[in-house]
This record gives sequence, structure tokens and C-alpha cells, in this order.
Amino acid sequence: MTRNNIPKDHPRVHSLKIRSKMSDSFHSGILSQNGLIAHGRGEAFDYILGENTNKISLDTIRVATAQLLLSDSVISVNGNSAALCSKEIVKLAKLTNSKIEINLFHKSPTRVKKISQLLKKHGAIDIYGENKKYLTRVPGLKSNRKFIDKRGIFSSDVIFVPLEDGDRTEFLKKMNKTVITVDLNPLSRTSIMSDISIIDNLIRVLPEMIKQSKNMSNFSSTDLHNIVTKFNNQNQLQSILKFMSKRLIDLST
Amino acid sequence: MTRNNIPKDHPRVHSLKIRSKMSDSFHSGILSQNGLIAHGRGEAFDYILGENTNKISLDTIRVATAQLLLSDSVISVNGNSAALCSKEIVKLAKLTNSKIEINLFHKSPTRVKKISQLLKKHGAIDIYGENKKYLTRVPGLKSNRKFIDKRGIFSSDVIFVPLEDGDRTEFLKKMNKTVITVDLNPLSRTSIMSDISIIDNLIRVLPEMIKQSKNMSNFSSTDLHNIVTKFNNQNQLQSILKFMSKRLIDLST
Repeated sequence: MTRNNIPKDHPRVHSLKIRSKMSDSFHSGILSQNGLIAHGRGEAFDYILGENTNKISLDTIRVATAQLLLSDSVISVNGNSAALCSKEIVKLAKLTNSKIEINLFHKSPTRVKKISQLLKKHGAIDIYGENKKYLTRVPGLKSNRKFIDKRGIFSSDVIFVPLEDGDRTEFLKKMNKTVITVDLNPLSRTSIMSDISIIDNLIRVLPEMIKQSKNMSNFSSTDLHNIVTKFNNQNQLQSILKFMSKRLIDLST
Repeated sequence: MTRNNIPKDHPRVHSLKIRSKMSDSFHSGILSQNGLIAHGRGEAFDYILGENTNKISLDTIRVATAQLLLSDSVISVNGNSAALCSKEIVKLAKLTNSKIEINLFHKSPTRVKKISQLLKKHGAIDIYGENKKYLTRVPGLKSNRKFIDKRGIFSSDVIFVPLEDGDRTEFLKKMNKTVITVDLNPLSRTSIMSDISIIDNLIRVLPEMIKQSKNMSNFSSTDLHNIVTKFNNQNQLQSILKFMSKRLIDLST
């Protein structure tokens, strides 16, 4: 099914449209094969969530946005986040004064270049993670993601890693980074290990972060700090799990 | 990550191995791109289930096996089921005297041929759905799956469609077929519309069906009938949803 022949009355029309977008990104070389499987996992959890941003996530999005506004931060982009939300990533980076770094699990220079071009098409100027001259290793990490940019992730305090894998989050934490993630699975290692885990769909989260960045643009550091320090990620994850658990029961009747 | 370089101590080693098998099947042309996304959805629901066959599913597997043994039945094979369990499909078809028919959503003669070859490699003799001469249309169904074999699905009472899509299940029901499915999503249209929905992972279900077919091989028709008629799919689905709901709460603590 391509984007043009999805029947408008199909019960899963919205989900099929996004799936078709992922399919295009796969063909153009932005998304990896494992990225397609990961997208499927997200679909399942989002289905349980009701494909809607709930009150719990709205609060977490606010905390994450305040954290980005407060800090020297980097948005780490992979194939899935580029495929879904390049435009919004660039917009959020500008509003929160964050750097953008490309960091791929299934790395190839071609794929990095394609993602970089896509981000630049949407107005990004500096993209980190591309120039070998500035790359250094995450100590102990074996995968291709071991390379990080000295000017980007390496030297920043707060790393926003939407749709991240567990291994990498673990190593970012070992490097004492504050990690913000967006992950539809509240039980993933990334969700559990991050400091701020937004359990929601990136396509809904980023527009909301953009909106909240604008709302908070004239907040003082103290205001932003208060929002962040009140937050408890573990409690939040338990609330989300309870919400999902209740959804399954509600849906069964 | 290929099958050979998955670290043995990785917390998700089993899931990564299957994912790598899917990856191979994708490269060899057996699995479609949408099949990869569908596999991801399954992974998420299986994670919630605990990647284990529970008591509820064991009972449903027993009912499904009895239904296959009782009837003039067809196992409908798609890319995902072929990629995961070709050998077991052929074995189960022999033990339950079921026909095998290939029916693909993203159809191409090459893919049909590859799946047919794979099934034949595992001992299948007659494969339906391949020869255009015998194909007829499912009335009203628009997708490529509208074509069914006159000697197979068209003329049989019971259709076992593991990993099926909702549109097709709906049309099989309109044709008054008894539908058995394996689907990890208890909320999918297929799970809801089928007569017997096994909410479990196909790679665990088929070996169990093979075992139960052997156990029930000398059961009388009356015995088999009693097993089938006692079953209530709606109640079963509610039990599974309650089980999953409880799992989410248990995992949160």
C-alpha cells in the first residue's frame, strides 16, 4: 500500500500513512531495516496508549523542554527520528538552542549524508557527527554508535536521544550525561535508565515541545529549574504503566 | 547486527536472533517491508506477555488443534509465517491433514515462488495459491489477497491464517469460513473477528500444535467436537487482556 492508495475509510488510516512515510524513508536510505521493526514495536505500544498524548506525558514533555532550555544540550538524530520528524527536530533545536548530532546504529557514510541533507533542507546549519576529524569514542561501547562528536555529545551535559537503543543510553549515563528520551515502550532499558523518559509518539511529542519551548521562552532559570527538580522519572513510568494497564482492561469490555 | 555477532550476554539475545532471521528473509525476498514492521508490533506484545506461552494460550492452542483435526482445513501462509516457521507449517499440515496455500498481501510471482520453494524444501508436496489457473476472487476484497485457490481456501471450511491482516479475516468470515489465527495483538481486528484467536508467538505456537496433534491423533470426532464447542473466543480474549494488564502492573514494581 503506498500513501496514495490507502483507503480514506480504513480503520487504521493514520497509522498506515505514517507507515508509508517510513517505507519511503527506507527506500531513500534514511531508515534502516531494523528501524522498520522498531517502528512496529512503537505502533503496538502506541495502540495501547490510545494513539494520544495523555496528561502524564504532557507533564513530562514540559519537564523535558525546561531541561533543554536550561542546558547546553544536543539532540541526537537517528534514522527513525529523521524519517518521522526532521523538520520539527530542526525547529526545536533552534528554539532551545540545542546542537544537532547524527548518531546511527547501522552506520554508513551515505546514510549519515542523506540524513544531514534532509536536516539541512529543513534549515539546520551545523550538523555534528559527520566530520571524522571531530569524532571520538564513547569509552567501552562496541557498536558503531561509539563515535560521538567532540563538539557535540562529548562536550554537552544534556543529551536528547529520541528512539534510542538501550546500550547507548547506558553508556551516555556512564558518561554522566543527563539523558532525555522519547520511547513508546515504558519498560525498555532506555526508558528505565534515562532521566526524563517521554512515553509517547515522537510525531506528537515534538510539536508539543516546540509549543512549550515558545511558552517557556521568557521563564527565568529558577522557574525552569523548579520544573525540572520536581520531576521523578520512576514515578512517572509507574503512572504510565498503570495507565496502559487500565487501557487494556477498558479495551477488553 | 547479524546473527553471528549478537553478543551472547545481550539482555535481548533471543529476540535479536529472531530479528536477524527476519532480516535474512527480507533480503532473500520472502518477507516484505511491511512484514518487518508487523514483526516489530508482535515483539512489543510478546514482551508484555513475557515471551512465554501462558495457560490461557495453551488451552486455545488445544482447541485450534482439535478444530484442524476435525475439519477440511487449509493453512494460509504469508511472508512472515514462512520466514518464521516453514518447517513447522509443513509438519502441522501433515499431522492434521491440512492443505497449504500461499496468500500474500504484497504479492509478486517471485515472492510466491520463493515461499513455495522454502515450503517444498521442508517436505511440502502440494502448494495452493500458485497456479493462476485455479485462482478465484474473494468477493468484495480489494487487495492482492482477493485471489484464493479453488481447491484450497475457496472450497474448505476451516482456514488457519496465522499473522493475518484485518481486511482479509473480515472477508473470510463473510464467506462463512471458520477462522483460526495466531496474533500477538489481542485487540487486532483479526483477533476479534476470528473464531479461535491464539494470542501468542507463532514460533512457540506451532511446535505446541504439533505436539498436541500427536496427542490427539486417536481422539474420536466426538472428543474433538467437545473440545471445540466448549470454547468461547470472546471470553478467552478478555482473559488474555486481563493477563497482559496485570503483567504491566507487575513489571512496574
